This record gives sequence, C-alpha cells and structure tokens, in this order.
Amino acid sequence: MASNKYCVIMAGGIGSRFWPKSRQSMPKQFLDILGTGKSFIRHTFERFEKIVPAENFLVVTNRKYKDLVLEHLPELAPEQVLCEPVGRNTAPCIAYAAYSLLKRDPEAEMIVTPSDHLILDEDDFRAVISECLEFATQNDALMTVGIKPTRPDTGYGYIQVSDAQPISKVKCFTEKPDLQLAQTFLQCGEFYWNSGIFVWKARTIAEAFEKYLPDHHLLFSGLMNALGTDAEQNIVEMVFAECRAISIDYGIMEKADNVYVRCGHFGWSDLGTWGSVYQHSRKDRYANAIPEEGCYLYDTRSSIVSLPKGKIAVISGLKEYIVVDTDDVLMICPRAEEQSIKKFIDEVKYNNGDKHI
Amino acid sequence: MASNKYCVIMAGGIGSRFWPKSRQSMPKQFLDILGTGKSFIRHTFERFEKIVPAENFLVVTNRKYKDLVLEHLPELAPEQVLCEPVGRNTAPCIAYAAYSLLKRDPEAEMIVTPSDHLILDEDDFRAVISECLEFATQNDALMTVGIKPTRPDTGYGYIQVSDAQPISKVKCFTEKPDLQLAQTFLQCGEFYWNSGIFVWKARTIAEAFEKYLPDHHLLFSGLMNALGTDAEQNIVEMVFAECRAISIDYGIMEKADNVYVRCGHFGWSDLGTWGSVYQHSRKDRYANAIPEEGCYLYDTRSSIVSLPKGKIAVISGLKEYIVVDTDDVLMICPRAEEQSIKKFIDEVKYNNGDKHI
Repeated sequence: MASNKYCVIMAGGIGSRFWPKSRQSMPKQFLDILGTGKSFIRHTFERFEKIVPAENFLVVTNRKYKDLVLEHLPELAPEQVLCEPVGRNTAPCIAYAAYSLLKRDPEAEMIVTPSDHLILDEDDFRAVISECLEFATQNDALMTVGIKPTRPDTGYGYIQVSDAQPISKVKCFTEKPDLQLAQTFLQCGEFYWNSGIFVWKARTIAEAFEKYLPDHHLLFSGLMNALGTDAEQNIVEMVFAECRAISIDYGIMEKADNVYVRCGHFGWSDLGTWGSVYQHSRKDRYANAIPEEGCYLYDTRSSIVSLPKGKIAVISGLKEYIVVDTDDVLMICPRAEEQSIKKFIDEVKYNNGDKHI
Repeated sequence: MASNKYCVIMAGGIGSRFWPKSRQSMPKQFLDILGTGKSFIRHTFERFEKIVPAENFLVVTNRKYKDLVLEHLPELAPEQVLCEPVGRNTAPCIAYAAYSLLKRDPEAEMIVTPSDHLILDEDDFRAVISECLEFATQNDALMTVGIKPTRPDTGYGYIQVSDAQPISKVKCFTEKPDLQLAQTFLQCGEFYWNSGIFVWKARTIAEAFEKYLPDHHLLFSGLMNALGTDAEQNIVEMVFAECRAISIDYGIMEKADNVYVRCGHFGWSDLGTWGSVYQHSRKDRYANAIPEEGCYLYDTRSSIVSLPKGKIAVISGLKEYIVVDTDDVLMICPRAEEQSIKKFIDEVKYNNGDKHI
C-alpha cells in the first residue's frame, strides 16, 4: 500500500546571514557550514527518509535553485521540485505544496520542514514527528513542533501552551521578544521555541486556508487543474505575482483554533547566525571553532574560522571574531557584530553590484 | 666609448618577512608590495639605467630565480645574470660579480645595490651615486651610502662618521643596536643608517678581498679563467660549496682603512618588514594602508591590508593589524607581532612541508 505520508521541504531561503559563505547562487541550505560532509538540505532529506518514501517528498524552492536541489537530492524526480517564481514567505509556499498533494492524494498527511536547521537527536525527533502525524490525522489538527528553550533567545518566535501535556493546545504565538520578555518566557516554563516544523493533513491545512486566507485559497485551489500540465509554470507565475506575502504563523497558526504543539528536546537549532553555528561547532581548547586542518592560531580565543578547501590561515591576536574566507571575499568581524553582515552586503552591493553577493 | 660604469644588483633574498605574500618561488624583489605597478627589482634597474647602460648590469641571484630576473628585466642578456648555487651572504655574491667584471674590464667602476629597497627621491639619489663613483675612482676608496636617520630604528646597521664632510671616512660600523643605543645614535648626529649600497672600482674591492678575505680571493680569482666558458657553472658550484658565508660589512668594510661614506637624504627604506611598508604606504583617513579597491573597513584603524587581485574584504573592529590574503594562505596578525612571521612559517612548514611557503 502506498504511503499517505509526505514531506515538504521549504528551501527558498537565500541565507544572507552566512555571507560571504552563502551566496545568492549558493544559499545556506546547500552548504555544509558545520563541516559534517553533507549539506543542510541533504541532512533534512535523510532525516525524513526513514519515515517518508523518497517519491513522497516535495521541495519548494526558487526556480533558480531547482538544479541545485536535484543535485543534492538525486533521489527526487524533477516534478518533485516545486518552483516559486518569487519568494512570498511561508504561506504561499505551503499552499502550493498542500494543493499539489491534495490533487495527488486527498488523504495526504503532510510534514512541512525548513531545509537548513540542525537536529542533533534524530531518533527522538522522528518519534515526535510520528506522534504528530498520528495526532494530526486523528484530530484534524494543525500541529507545530515546539522546542524547550535553554536560554532567553531573542531570535526565535515563542509558543505558549495551555497545559503540561506532551501535546498541548496552543494558547498564544509571540514573535521575537525583547530580552526581558524572553527571560520571563524562559522562567515561566509555558513557552516553547517555534521550530517552524508543521504536521497536518493536506485537507486540514486547505480548510484553514479557505477560512483564514481565502484569497490564497482561491488562487492556489484554482491552480489545481493546471498542476502537472504544461500550463503549470505560467499559472504559478500569475498566482505568485498576485498573492500576498505572509507567513503561515501570522496568516493561519495564530488565528486557527485547532492548533496544537508537540514539545520536544532533541537538540534543535535553526543555525540562523554565525553565532549559533559557533555554539554548535566543536571547539579547540581555546574555544575556537576552526576547520580540522590548516588553521594556525596564536593568542586567539572564542573565534570561528571558515576557509576554502586547501587554504591555510595563520591568525594571531583575535578574541571572539568571525573570520570567513572564500575565493573572492574575506570577512573579518567581531562575533558581537554579526548583525552587521546585512549592512556589509548592502554596501558591497552598492559599490560592486551583485558580483560578490 | 664604452662606459666603465657597472651596476651589480644583488637579488638572492627570499624575503620571508613578507610571507605569505612573498614565497620561496616569488621573493620580495619580484613583488610590487606598494602597488606601484612595478616590482622592486624593476624599480632598481630603472633607477640605475639612467647612469649605467643596460649591457653593464649584472644581477646576482639564486639559480632558481634566473628566469624571473630575465622576465622582469628583459633588457638583460642571460649571461648578465650570475647564478649562485646557494646563498652565502653578501661577500661571496660581491666577489663573484667583482671578479667577473675585472675579467671583462680591468677599469670597471662598480655600484652594488640590493634589489628590493625603496628610494623616493631618485634624482638626489643618482647625484649621490655619481659623486661616489667619482670619489671611489679618484681615491681607490670603498664607498658606502649612509642615510640620515629619522628615528631610532633597531632594525638597521649604523655607520659612525669621522667628520661632517659630505664624504667622510668611516669611524665605525655597528650592527643592529638596541633601542637605547639607537636613541643615543640618533641624538649624537654622527651616525647614519647603513643602506647596503656600495660604490668602488672592481680592482679596489678585489684588493680588499685579497687582504681581508684571502680564502675568498683565492676561490673567486681562481674562477676567472672559467668565466664565460662551459665550465663556469661547475666551478661556481664548487667555489660556493667551499666558501664561507660572510657579509661584506663584517668581512671587509669593518676592517679596511679606505672606507668612506657619502651621506644622503633621499627617502630611503629597506622595506624589510610589513611595518616599514605600512610607513611608506598611502593611508586612508583612519590611517589604514589598503588596496585602492575592494576594501570595506568598519571600526578599523592603523591596519595594513593586502589582497589578491579582484578579491574584496570586509573588515570590522581591527586596530593596528596586518591582514595579508593570498590564494592559498590568509594571515591576520597584530602589527606589533610582525617578528612572529618567521615562527609562523616554521610551524606551517613543519606541518605542511613547503606547500604554502
């Protein structure tokens, strides 16, 4: 019997916070920033491959990354890569995947996952996802996965739960809080990080689109007849041109009344910044996260260094720095200044155009 | 009438203090570290070309740099490049050139110059050299060029003069002094930096070799018959294998009694360290010496940056650093630590062999 379980990998991001290692032509999900030997998207695929057959994956990405996706996931057929002509945040991305699955399998159960997160304990994680699939199927629920916070992180969204059950109804979503609020959340114990991983039946999320984002429902359900035909790309083009950019959290999860969260502790990070990569990297005895070979450090502490393959670096006298070297761009920046990378990119772009971006 | 004036360019150095920009395969004299558009050896050649005809130049270098010399100085014929099989300091290098010139022209007047120094006021410099040539010819003198010191530099040798004449008999040579002594020298006014530029008749220096370095005299005068024959390279090989490494300063200049110095102010530096390159580079308003293009600095002061052509750098939060990026090595080091470069090279060599050296 064919599986009703599907996995939708969202892979449209450009990961500019990892510039100059990530580029418009090579975003974070296709990189191996931790030096594991595999790209993030490859890890994501292999993580779910044990519960979802390869032919039941969909990857939603920008059309310019289609070839990269197929290169990293050669198990997929080209029609398993859904191409957005333009990024419109998560709601349109999920709608495109959900209505595609509905057409193929009205009973589809759907896991939605980012393509570039870190999960350390994959067995625990899959157990959580399996529970979510069971609960979502039996209860027509919109499930989200929450992470027990370990620090007052101001870079994440938070989910407040209604009770202490493993699967709890969601009381409230809060976008990135300030430090004081994040500290309160951490102490309170009712708040979990929003991982951006969702589980639901395709039909349940389609009903939610109809109710909470009716414009998107109209556009994407109208697309269903064209799916899999020669007309698909043209109509997708029009639909994305028309549709409003909005996140699934803001557009549906914060409004619907059948939203549940399954909380887990499986060593999760969105690895959204060099700082979080530093946190999750193996360090030398002076707390430096450096490549296994070719890094000669003197009087250097708590720094992270990334080098092109085969290159060596001799670094003296840096404390808490990010050093990222690539073939055409060198970046040296204090770890505390990593939020400036966007400014750096803007300035380089202003002077040099897209050449180094 | 053919000119009796000859210029001997000493170009055997490996310039390890400019690693990783200088390499065993591409020493400093072949680089354009200041970004002038010409290598040091090219500048040296052009500086003397106005007083010495091209066919009267000799370059003494390690045999592995012969092709590089001819590439940078296409005006020279291959036989104008004298190849040392191994570096033996300046005395053997000068002996090889002096006896070669003697054989060709017993009346040869000889300028000896390093290949990798900076001279800002070339007209003044040539006037000084012309005076030296005249004095050396008329007086059978060993002339050296002294530089009026502008700071208590501990990296240079010093020459004490006997009187305040433009051309003065040398009282004493002192190797690199400590800071206190250097300060005394600077205040005293009788001390000049030893530029390592010499002027003499080939016959005068040969007589000095005979008297003060008789072993070298025997070896190199014995070589004269073979010069210009097929046997030259084999005999040169034996001579250099035999002869003791010694500097011309220590072996002759400190001992001879016909040593004179002509002092000048023509903006000289041996550019022996990144620090001296920094001193002589054009700076931005935050005192950074950076390439004309492609350097984006934030909160960065008094630093020197060198990049491969076409590469850009974004640097934040460095004060008084040296950043040297090349295709296969990146070095980041406080300016005050530049004497550590030798240690860096040793350690890289120990771990990686000659690959990046």
